[in-house]
Amino acid sequence: MADRVFTNAVDVHGNPLRLVVRDGRFVDAGMLPATAEVVDLGGSLVLPGFVDGHIHLDKSFVGDVWRAHLPAATLRERLAAEKKLLAASKPMAGRADALIAQAASFGTVAMRCHVDVDATTGLSHLHAVMDAAEKWRDRIAIEIVAFPQAGVVSCPGTADVLDAAMREGAGVVGGIDPTTLDGDADAQLDIVFGIAERHGAKIDIHLHEPGLQGIEQLLRIASRTAAAGMAGRVAVSHAYALGEVPPETAERTAAALASAGVSIMTNAPGDRPFPPVLRLREAGVRVFSGNDNIRDAWWPYGNGDMLQRAMLIGYRSGFYTDDELLTALDMITHAPASVIGREGYGLGVGDEASFVVLEACNGAAAVAGVPRSRRVVVRGEWLPARPAPEPERGTEGSEATFARVPASGAVPRRVP
Amino acid sequence: MADRVFTNAVDVHGNPLRLVVRDGRFVDAGMLPATAEVVDLGGSLVLPGFVDGHIHLDKSFVGDVWRAHLPAATLRERLAAEKKLLAASKPMAGRADALIAQAASFGTVAMRCHVDVDATTGLSHLHAVMDAAEKWRDRIAIEIVAFPQAGVVSCPGTADVLDAAMREGAGVVGGIDPTTLDGDADAQLDIVFGIAERHGAKIDIHLHEPGLQGIEQLLRIASRTAAAGMAGRVAVSHAYALGEVPPETAERTAAALASAGVSIMTNAPGDRPFPPVLRLREAGVRVFSGNDNIRDAWWPYGNGDMLQRAMLIGYRSGFYTDDELLTALDMITHAPASVIGREGYGLGVGDEASFVVLEACNGAAAVAGVPRSRRVVVRGEWLPARPAPEPERGTEGSEATFARVPASGAVPRRVP
Repeated sequence: MADRVFTNAVDVHGNPLRLVVRDGRFVDAGMLPATAEVVDLGGSLVLPGFVDGHIHLDKSFVGDVWRAHLPAATLRERLAAEKKLLAASKPMAGRADALIAQAASFGTVAMRCHVDVDATTGLSHLHAVMDAAEKWRDRIAIEIVAFPQAGVVSCPGTADVLDAAMREGAGVVGGIDPTTLDGDADAQLDIVFGIAERHGAKIDIHLHEPGLQGIEQLLRIASRTAAAGMAGRVAVSHAYALGEVPPETAERTAAALASAGVSIMTNAPGDRPFPPVLRLREAGVRVFSGNDNIRDAWWPYGNGDMLQRAMLIGYRSGFYTDDELLTALDMITHAPASVIGREGYGLGVGDEASFVVLEACNGAAAVAGVPRSRRVVVRGEWLPARPAPEPERGTEGSEATFARVPASGAVPRRVP
Repeated sequence: MADRVFTNAVDVHGNPLRLVVRDGRFVDAGMLPATAEVVDLGGSLVLPGFVDGHIHLDKSFVGDVWRAHLPAATLRERLAAEKKLLAASKPMAGRADALIAQAASFGTVAMRCHVDVDATTGLSHLHAVMDAAEKWRDRIAIEIVAFPQAGVVSCPGTADVLDAAMREGAGVVGGIDPTTLDGDADAQLDIVFGIAERHGAKIDIHLHEPGLQGIEQLLRIASRTAAAGMAGRVAVSHAYALGEVPPETAERTAAALASAGVSIMTNAPGDRPFPPVLRLREAGVRVFSGNDNIRDAWWPYGNGDMLQRAMLIGYRSGFYTDDELLTALDMITHAPASVIGREGYGLGVGDEASFVVLEACNGAAAVAGVPRSRRVVVRGEWLPARPAPEPERGTEGSEATFARVPASGAVPRRVP
């Protein structure tokens, strides 16, 4: 592992930055050996590696053919369509690998990945994602959430499978819409908090329940978190309700979440209300972000780039000032790193020397402009440039499209 | 100009595509000379060059230092702050040039550019933008709107300057919020339609007026358009009101706009209602898009990429299916091309051979994923790869930041 000094860079505020790396970690400039390689970053911006606080590696079609989005009238219909599409797709571990590679090329160094675990799926998704994660362990830290996508109480046998998933290495137990999906909030939360307690695990609950019903659920989760002494170890993902209720209600709920130590994850969806980021953070709530679904049966958007996600958070939240743009940046770096519990995350002495080099003059400009070019350093070493794009050619049912096009010759022309 | 055949590509639907280019235009395959160069596109997607239907080249700080966004309480305050910031910035023609170069590198081949023209600014912005446009005339077609940012009636003398701008080469006369800014809708519209008539020019009016007041304005513009026989030559930009009123009202208004031949431009803003794209298009209204402001005194977002804009349109509009995503794509290609009146736009025989090559399997995937890499062909020739980023280093007041960082040595370390 070479010692290196990265010079001529700027930090998030546009201030000069010089990074000395020894054995994969940042060290004090006095520790710089004379033999260290000097790397001139040409005035580029350096940010700590991005952290995706919410991703579904088992669902994405990245690395497979394009599958057009199919409308679904209900959640159950969507779940059934998803199972069918996934069954027809390339093996899950390979798709997860392709998406991790894509995210890594954008500068992601850690993720919290929700993996479907239920009585019918069993642990098959978990095993596939763990295989992919193992392959990347030296470059990306992946925390796994055992996620009961189809419900807990309403999908009998799921509690046992969740329990088994925790034994196999999931670090977080998930939950989902305790009232609308399971019809019995306390029954689901008893199971989820019980499993977390037994395994010393964290909790991350998907909550799409609307308005005051969602607020009630958040207060219930906050109260259980406090009672279980789990401050800082419980997150609620989405929590759309916080964006649907009057500001005073959101503020009262924020106070309860902050006091209990419950974090909120939002990916700033495009066409529906979502949590008011600044209001929550001012109340002391840790708010972080993740890409959520990426080109899967749920929606077609996303490419794995957390910097694009930071832009979307700012764009949707009306963040214009530098402070606001840097809040969006925090939501894809330090905030999710602390949720995942990354030790030695950052650009300080002693931190792991994993960072992203971008063509931007400061962090605010990077969030607003989403520069294309990225160079990524992981533990002091350049991440190899991404190989040529995967052969994810063709659309569903036309996998052979490309084979039908010779390099030249008498192919029937379509256009012109 | 070399003859070329571009093989092994796919079109928006993922179907095989082969493009034969002679003298900068697409020709029938039978016209292919034996000596033509064969270019294998490796299965990439080919789209017609992007068209930015609404950009402000005179306002952007791209090509200059970063200037943090300053909050402003009123429109007049914003306008005053903008004038001050622009006066302190690098020369306008150079900044416009930098932004055109950036947009071109993303695949933009044509633009409609709004240029501030008023009694205090005179024609200085117009001349600066025309200088930049002249430099790019072989690669980007730029249509210029004489835009009375500060109002028409309420900014005495502006009507004469607008008139002068049309004589100097602006092809479109602009307007803005006839009631809220000028306090007399008919007075402003009399002037704007009058100038258009005298110069045989088109019209593009910024309309931010709210709710039913905005609707009234749209109906007024539709009725004047019909009376003046200007179907297809009048556009209204933003038209937020269409997203603020009940669906029935929006539909009634859409019918009037369609019947009069008034087009609507939206950039799908992030945190406020905007026109319902599908509803308008179903009613027969031509809806197109543009980036609008890019890193300027109004907001920090944007990088000139129209494909990112298409993604934002889809993201904000809840476009999930392939048809919907292709609607967003149309709004950055064919729709604005027809508004601008581009002859020979497209991938058909006889069209100008200007196109973008992307790593995506079809148009829907390109909109949803916004692939980073772009190769651009203009009239059959590759656009040179973008030169190293401009030295737009440092933030306001710290232009010398980079000069203070030697390649190595005893610079005070900040982090670590």
